[in-house]
Amino acid sequence: MEAMLQQSRAMCPFLKRTAPSTLRTLSTATRPSTGGGTMSNLQVLARRCPVMSKALAVQSARMSEAKRFTSSAAGVPTMKPFRAPTEKRSLHTTGGHPASVAPGSYEKNEQVHPNLARPLRAAPAAEAAIHAKHQATATTRFDYNAFYNGELEKKHKDKSYRYFNNINRLAQEFPRAHTASAEERVTVWCSNDYLGMGRNRQVLESMHHTLDTYGAGAGGTRNISGHNQHAVKLEDTLAKLHGKEASLVFSSCFVANDATLATLGSKMPDCVILSDSLNHASMIQGIRHSGAKKMVFKHNDLVDLEAKLASLPLHVPKIIAFESVYSMCGSIAPIEKICDLAEKYGAITFLDEVHAVGMYGPHGAGVAEHLDYEVYASQDTASPKSTKGTVMDRIDIITGTLGKAYGCVGGYIAASANMVDTIRSLAPGFIFTTSLPPATMAGADTAIQYQAEQPRDRVLQQLHTRAVKSALKDLDIPVIPNPSHIVPLLVGDAEVAKRASDKLLEEHGIYVQAINYPTVPRGEERLRITPTPGHTKELRDHLVQAVQAVWNDLGIKRASDWEKLGGFVGVGVAGAEDANQPIWEDAQLGLTPAEPLEGAISRELEAGVQASQATFVPPMKTGIAQGTRAYSTIASTPVGVVA
Amino acid sequence: MEAMLQQSRAMCPFLKRTAPSTLRTLSTATRPSTGGGTMSNLQVLARRCPVMSKALAVQSARMSEAKRFTSSAAGVPTMKPFRAPTEKRSLHTTGGHPASVAPGSYEKNEQVHPNLARPLRAAPAAEAAIHAKHQATATTRFDYNAFYNGELEKKHKDKSYRYFNNINRLAQEFPRAHTASAEERVTVWCSNDYLGMGRNRQVLESMHHTLDTYGAGAGGTRNISGHNQHAVKLEDTLAKLHGKEASLVFSSCFVANDATLATLGSKMPDCVILSDSLNHASMIQGIRHSGAKKMVFKHNDLVDLEAKLASLPLHVPKIIAFESVYSMCGSIAPIEKICDLAEKYGAITFLDEVHAVGMYGPHGAGVAEHLDYEVYASQDTASPKSTKGTVMDRIDIITGTLGKAYGCVGGYIAASANMVDTIRSLAPGFIFTTSLPPATMAGADTAIQYQAEQPRDRVLQQLHTRAVKSALKDLDIPVIPNPSHIVPLLVGDAEVAKRASDKLLEEHGIYVQAINYPTVPRGEERLRITPTPGHTKELRDHLVQAVQAVWNDLGIKRASDWEKLGGFVGVGVAGAEDANQPIWEDAQLGLTPAEPLEGAISRELEAGVQASQATFVPPMKTGIAQGTRAYSTIASTPVGVVA
Repeated sequence: MEAMLQQSRAMCPFLKRTAPSTLRTLSTATRPSTGGGTMSNLQVLARRCPVMSKALAVQSARMSEAKRFTSSAAGVPTMKPFRAPTEKRSLHTTGGHPASVAPGSYEKNEQVHPNLARPLRAAPAAEAAIHAKHQATATTRFDYNAFYNGELEKKHKDKSYRYFNNINRLAQEFPRAHTASAEERVTVWCSNDYLGMGRNRQVLESMHHTLDTYGAGAGGTRNISGHNQHAVKLEDTLAKLHGKEASLVFSSCFVANDATLATLGSKMPDCVILSDSLNHASMIQGIRHSGAKKMVFKHNDLVDLEAKLASLPLHVPKIIAFESVYSMCGSIAPIEKICDLAEKYGAITFLDEVHAVGMYGPHGAGVAEHLDYEVYASQDTASPKSTKGTVMDRIDIITGTLGKAYGCVGGYIAASANMVDTIRSLAPGFIFTTSLPPATMAGADTAIQYQAEQPRDRVLQQLHTRAVKSALKDLDIPVIPNPSHIVPLLVGDAEVAKRASDKLLEEHGIYVQAINYPTVPRGEERLRITPTPGHTKELRDHLVQAVQAVWNDLGIKRASDWEKLGGFVGVGVAGAEDANQPIWEDAQLGLTPAEPLEGAISRELEAGVQASQATFVPPMKTGIAQGTRAYSTIASTPVGVVA
Repeated sequence: MEAMLQQSRAMCPFLKRTAPSTLRTLSTATRPSTGGGTMSNLQVLARRCPVMSKALAVQSARMSEAKRFTSSAAGVPTMKPFRAPTEKRSLHTTGGHPASVAPGSYEKNEQVHPNLARPLRAAPAAEAAIHAKHQATATTRFDYNAFYNGELEKKHKDKSYRYFNNINRLAQEFPRAHTASAEERVTVWCSNDYLGMGRNRQVLESMHHTLDTYGAGAGGTRNISGHNQHAVKLEDTLAKLHGKEASLVFSSCFVANDATLATLGSKMPDCVILSDSLNHASMIQGIRHSGAKKMVFKHNDLVDLEAKLASLPLHVPKIIAFESVYSMCGSIAPIEKICDLAEKYGAITFLDEVHAVGMYGPHGAGVAEHLDYEVYASQDTASPKSTKGTVMDRIDIITGTLGKAYGCVGGYIAASANMVDTIRSLAPGFIFTTSLPPATMAGADTAIQYQAEQPRDRVLQQLHTRAVKSALKDLDIPVIPNPSHIVPLLVGDAEVAKRASDKLLEEHGIYVQAINYPTVPRGEERLRITPTPGHTKELRDHLVQAVQAVWNDLGIKRASDWEKLGGFVGVGVAGAEDANQPIWEDAQLGLTPAEPLEGAISRELEAGVQASQATFVPPMKTGIAQGTRAYSTIASTPVGVVA
């Protein structure tokens, strides 16, 4: 892409004097075309160019010959055919925005690192054969191969094609992993096993035991031989964790979000779903599948949300769907104020706590619990405070995962008994699928109870997060400000982000995946770092040095560069830091003005070592929630779907 | 329900002289109503009744007051409100067909067995409060609670509400399980762990080892730290198993089917999906989510399929979506002839082998492999036959599960490299979800390779299936004829099927789940028995005696009764048996005219005992595929997404 652009620039006076960022904007901004579809502004300009206009005319003639086929099949790989009004909309995850009108081979610049998955593409000769075959049968059969190749070509062209890194996280060497080679070690800095629960001794013991007793799989759907004591117990634990009447476990939280929103949205008459603009793909998919009316409100924008709520009749059912921690930028929703709006306008709240469960709150129930820290921290005392009216109590539906901070796999919803029973009874994605394995459910249950009993891991995770953010900021590295455990470094270019990630891996033995479109918007590409309790000072220092070196090597913009440009996604924006104070407060972390951060970390680490040598219920840090709540013993649960 | 009906009958001359079956027909058959929706024929009759017409008038007045609310919210729980044409269609899994016009409390007859999950319903007092509250705010906010209760009430009323049985399958006592009580034993006769691979020693060893080395969970999506050697290896194994270039693993085959069909159908311009009428919910959902045009062809009906294919222009992309083994009736698709039609009309084939992988074919690749048994059985000989043009080779996309015959959890697709890469690159349900745990992928890989190496388990499963079917038929029990490993017993009534299942569990210690609507059509309710290699003669004899007793106790129709009625779903239909000869032929099972079935079973069992004491690659039965193919060693796989 870069090479092609340079070549074109040498010849074209327009390209020569136009900045790459302007070209990007021109190529992604679209306008309606006369053909009924859309065309980019770059295409509009190209039509006025004496050279390109002829090329476009030739191409247009070819396209009309083969108008039913994809662009690559028609031999014009760089120009997207105009979309006829009757054509279907593509899924939102596809690239498909042509960034150039000049033809060129993207393949010659494609380099596949030995550790990377190789792309799955037909050899050029095979492709040529496909194209030739297609030309011969253009008026007969659909060319499926050409369709697949065309879709892949789009992904390559807009740099959204993904190469998977082969990373094998080692339980005994957490947070280290080996690559495709069993000998080569890297440090993983982007896993969502935020607390290292995937290698927790109690979790693994519980899984080993359950595997031996109950086998590898559940053997059926929940209705046909796949319902068991592990499901009952896990759903009981989850309901208690969130202070709800019931919960329901799914294959994943993708499925939980998709199935729940699709079911509610399709069954409630005239339902409207109000969705935060940065919501996860699973919610976007669930809303689309529901067929319900969708209103997207600006990210965390209460004014916009209220305006949209107020525009709807009071009697219409409304679901406000949002997340507590937005995983790619680390922002946190104004949960309590959203509850206020929901009550005012007769809506229910659907809160995705996927990146927060295990991580926030005295029992790890998430940000909603954390917002009433003292209330929940005192739940096990002689005179527990009422949780009625707390933020967590006011949320109608909480969804979470067992696959991130809890270290296993699976997802769930927690809500009122009749709401959960409705989803249990109606959602095909729950009903017609094999249950999670007993060992997975047992392991997750142990992880939740472990984290509910003591907050040491998440406190240490927060301390490490603070240390990493602070060290990177000191070096003018552009950390996107946020109040959570996510450390996003702004890069702002897909190719550079990937190169930075590759350099970290190849030259420094550090694995941080580049996050590109469609996971984040174009232009906001980033590296997303997730510290864990296992990222000790030595590893953190290594990371900071490596990031500094890569930033230097690739000449990536510093925070001060972004500031000079007026700031971007919070980087270099005046006041952004102050507005993003950590949600885990100093006192909750045991930080005092007298004790520096690294001192607190050393103290926590020492307590952790002691605890790992202790029993299942380890001693807890004084002054922080003693929250054992309902978890002090693994009580036998009553027979039932959920408690 | 029964008690209510008896009470009504005592008073009503119409009910007194009308047979229950007639009432059922009247209440489920619907006709368009003047309100724009539908009403049952029983409702039409009720309007002519001097008593009921008044009740209906009162009800109608109430409904118009609260027309935006669900029936239960409006206090008229037994009458479905007329559907306005603008209202959304409900998901297909919902009941919602009112079976009676007479109001009554179904709760008093509801009995919950101690082993059953208790229903999740608000207490009557709470419901009354909800209704009262609703009446007061009818013109203001939507009553979410009433909505949930209304949906649940519909499920209770049409008897499609599900009670889950707490069944804990014991690895060391396969196929036995304990109930909610750890002491109480039952024999499981309806699990989809068809071969007992969930307790296979090699599978469990592989999982234990992987758990200790790589931890409980994957820790991320495939793109962000969740791609590893286990995924690479498993996808390589699956691609080889099905003779395809590539494969892709998903959280489940529900997700695999949903995501693949939704992506293809939405991305291919003007795509039409032709779907067998008995297709699984996951395919139905994927097709709906694709937004593509759907044409449902009659189950396994080539004439209907061809007519629909011929009605479409040749150049339009078409996907024929179907299953090899239909799990609820055991029928098998005419796969080869469907391939012929696909080629003739320029369609691609999407074959769900979920209930067939591990179970059919010399390597367990499914029915498609089984149809060229000799070709694939000779794959490891010195001069292997070409697989080009075999049925499996001709299928474009095969989907399968790791959660049934392979004993674990998860699903996959196998197809050409660029097709798989397209789904890998575009499907949100694959991209944005946590990978399966390393131990799950390792266990599944071991299970697949184990089954690919020797067919003993599936041969024994087939022999046990034949023995069970034969013994039940001898007792005039209505076994729905089919050529597969499923043993469906026709009951024909939801309540009776549930009572039969409860009696088997409570009185005989046998767990066979009743299969009711929406999993099977109303009127075709059944018990679905799935023998395994572990169901030895003693257990089989016990089952047959117990079924005989329950059929006697409940007066369930025998095969001869159905025959007198002209036959139903193959039971009592002349020639149905001959048309449904087992797909595993006598010779493939080692059966000869000289050796009776039980003799062959004893021989297989003995070989199995020997094998279980042998090494990882046990000796195989002479004369049956020596198919080690690519599986004789667990070879290190190249770095890459898929092979």
